Amino acid sequence: MITLYGCYRSRASRPLWLLAETGMEHTHVPVIQAYRLPDPGAPDAPVNTASPGFLAVNPIGQIPALVDGDLVLTESLAICLHLARRAGGPLAPKDEAELSACENWALFAATAIEPHSLPILQSQDPQVVEAEAAKLARGLARLEAHLTGRDWLSDRFTVADLMVAECLRYAQGHKPLMEAHPATASWLARCQARPAFQAMWQARSAEPA
Amino acid sequence: MITLYGCYRSRASRPLWLLAETGMEHTHVPVIQAYRLPDPGAPDAPVNTASPGFLAVNPIGQIPALVDGDLVLTESLAICLHLARRAGGPLAPKDEAELSACENWALFAATAIEPHSLPILQSQDPQVVEAEAAKLARGLARLEAHLTGRDWLSDRFTVADLMVAECLRYAQGHKPLMEAHPATASWLARCQARPAFQAMWQARSAEPA
Repeated sequence: MITLYGCYRSRASRPLWLLAETGMEHTHVPVIQAYRLPDPGAPDAPVNTASPGFLAVNPIGQIPALVDGDLVLTESLAICLHLARRAGGPLAPKDEAELSACENWALFAATAIEPHSLPILQSQDPQVVEAEAAKLARGLARLEAHLTGRDWLSDRFTVADLMVAECLRYAQGHKPLMEAHPATASWLARCQARPAFQAMWQARSAEPA
Repeated sequence: MITLYGCYRSRASRPLWLLAETGMEHTHVPVIQAYRLPDPGAPDAPVNTASPGFLAVNPIGQIPALVDGDLVLTESLAICLHLARRAGGPLAPKDEAELSACENWALFAATAIEPHSLPILQSQDPQVVEAEAAKLARGLARLEAHLTGRDWLSDRFTVADLMVAECLRYAQGHKPLMEAHPATASWLARCQARPAFQAMWQARSAEPA
């Protein structure tokens, strides 16, 4: 029995997209970030990251969280890797080498992409945005070299594409960066054209901002 | 045939410690960071991250890098996960659930520990150090809760302990943080008392600073 905690407007978008790709049976509890609520402790507040019921599942009060039997996972990309293996099929690594390559992409996304893409989305300071864009360009150069002449990171769409695409999404509004990396921009568009991404995005857009 | 590229005074310390734990056969090429050399292109310069020979292996010029047959890995923690599985035995995940838990610890180390522990080591600005220590305390609270009453992250020393310990090492000179998290500090001392850590540390100390 798989339960995923976390609303769409959070890093839960990653495993939610993956679940939509696989059609796996699961329960989704759309826990919202407490900091987004005026009074997270109010009796009529929606279940949130400060709710005792959720803290019993994940004491650090962070979303997403996944419960699968006795296993509790709290890192969005580790949840994606786990769910892909549970689902099997083309999304999952096909052998030991591809497993290691997927883990490499997960750690690349977490350390070379997201720390710079997120401030590009969130910062109001153009100097910060440009400094982060310059740092992101290093990771993008690697991605661009890898994707030139390829449709996907591996020989088909896998969990690796999904993880990197979701970490890069935050920066896709930065036009000069995208224009400077056309193979990456095309790949990102291919990822986001998938029906499962579209379903996730529609559900996300239906959530209150 | 396994070849690990990267000197001890780099994130290669992580897979080098792991290789010492396993005694696996491998070739070690102690590639040094180009920025540490006065003239990386000099004919008598040691092999470094700007050397054409190394760039042919890893075009992004980053250490560590691992070559295992056709597979090239460039993220230190992905290299650790891969080598642990290759070695097998008690260091490696024993089943699918432990594999997912190890990946969760790797991503936790990369996102909740290292981004804050490294500036604690490197910054000369006490305000920066204290701000990062406050952020690291969140990750440490989780680690402390998990390690209270436990010797290791799992039921024995595994690749998960090694990865988290190496990411936390940068901050271990911050006494108040360590004193506030005694189970974590004891666990870190247990990790570092292992003969394989000691062997890695001795080799690291023998390298020019």
